Amino acid sequence: MHKEFLQQAIELACSNVTNNNGGPYGAIIVKNGEIIAASGNCVTANIDPTAHAEVMAIRNACQALKNFKLSNCILYTSCEPCPMCLGAIYWARLKKVYFACNRKDAANAGFDDSFIYDEIPLPPEKRHIAMLHLVVPDAEKPFTAWNTQEGITLY
Amino acid sequence: MHKEFLQQAIELACSNVTNNNGGPYGAIIVKNGEIIAASGNCVTANIDPTAHAEVMAIRNACQALKNFKLSNCILYTSCEPCPMCLGAIYWARLKKVYFACNRKDAANAGFDDSFIYDEIPLPPEKRHIAMLHLVVPDAEKPFTAWNTQEGITLY
Repeated sequence: MHKEFLQQAIELACSNVTNNNGGPYGAIIVKNGEIIAASGNCVTANIDPTAHAEVMAIRNACQALKNFKLSNCILYTSCEPCPMCLGAIYWARLKKVYFACNRKDAANAGFDDSFIYDEIPLPPEKRHIAMLHLVVPDAEKPFTAWNTQEGITLY
Repeated sequence: MHKEFLQQAIELACSNVTNNNGGPYGAIIVKNGEIIAASGNCVTANIDPTAHAEVMAIRNACQALKNFKLSNCILYTSCEPCPMCLGAIYWARLKKVYFACNRKDAANAGFDDSFIYDEIPLPPEKRHIAMLHLVVPDAEKPFTAWNTQEGITLY
């Protein structure tokens, strides 16, 4: 069952290349044994660097369920998620993830995403894209607003 | 200059709470000293768990420039990016990031994103959301398709 859904994610990744939508990746989201969303990588077609297959499948699944949590859903992806997609998987509260290629397979094929994994443990200011903390007044005001505002939608 | 843009990101984060768009976060993207995109967190308004302020600002900036790379752009965000947003920043090829609150400030205010940072170094199958590698036939077929297809759009 899991392998069948993975095969479908792989087929999607292949057709995504043929259709020139974006990179060679595909992802499927399944709830109660049924596919509720599927997408290839749409970075170039959508002019959106965040439109990885997993992110797109998550977005589509949330629209399909009208819910920003995918608690009982499983993600099947043709390749091990990058850190961006890993983060998206946690925010979407997915139940489990199955992947076909791992990051070594991807690197062997010329797709090396591991550089972002290597950047994460570095101090923010030492990363290749420097991330700098500046002290400004009222930086915590948005959190105070959130904690005192009535009627907010929790997520 | 950098602090002024950060102040604007903080104001955006505050109004985002008042407008009930989503969480208390705001992000601005600047190119050549001009704001080209700005967004608050839109997770609940858009029913999209990936719609963090940074991701939304990146998407908007790419649409504005009609380019999926933001090479000479700077991101200003009211709070240190989570791993999803960090990944998005790398994929968008941003030049630099400035943030106001760091992850400790956020945790002190009750917003603790550090659990995802803690999950990343774990073996995928040991994470709270288990990520399982299954060996299936033709898993590398999408990469082969990509490497042999003519006329693909590189990204």
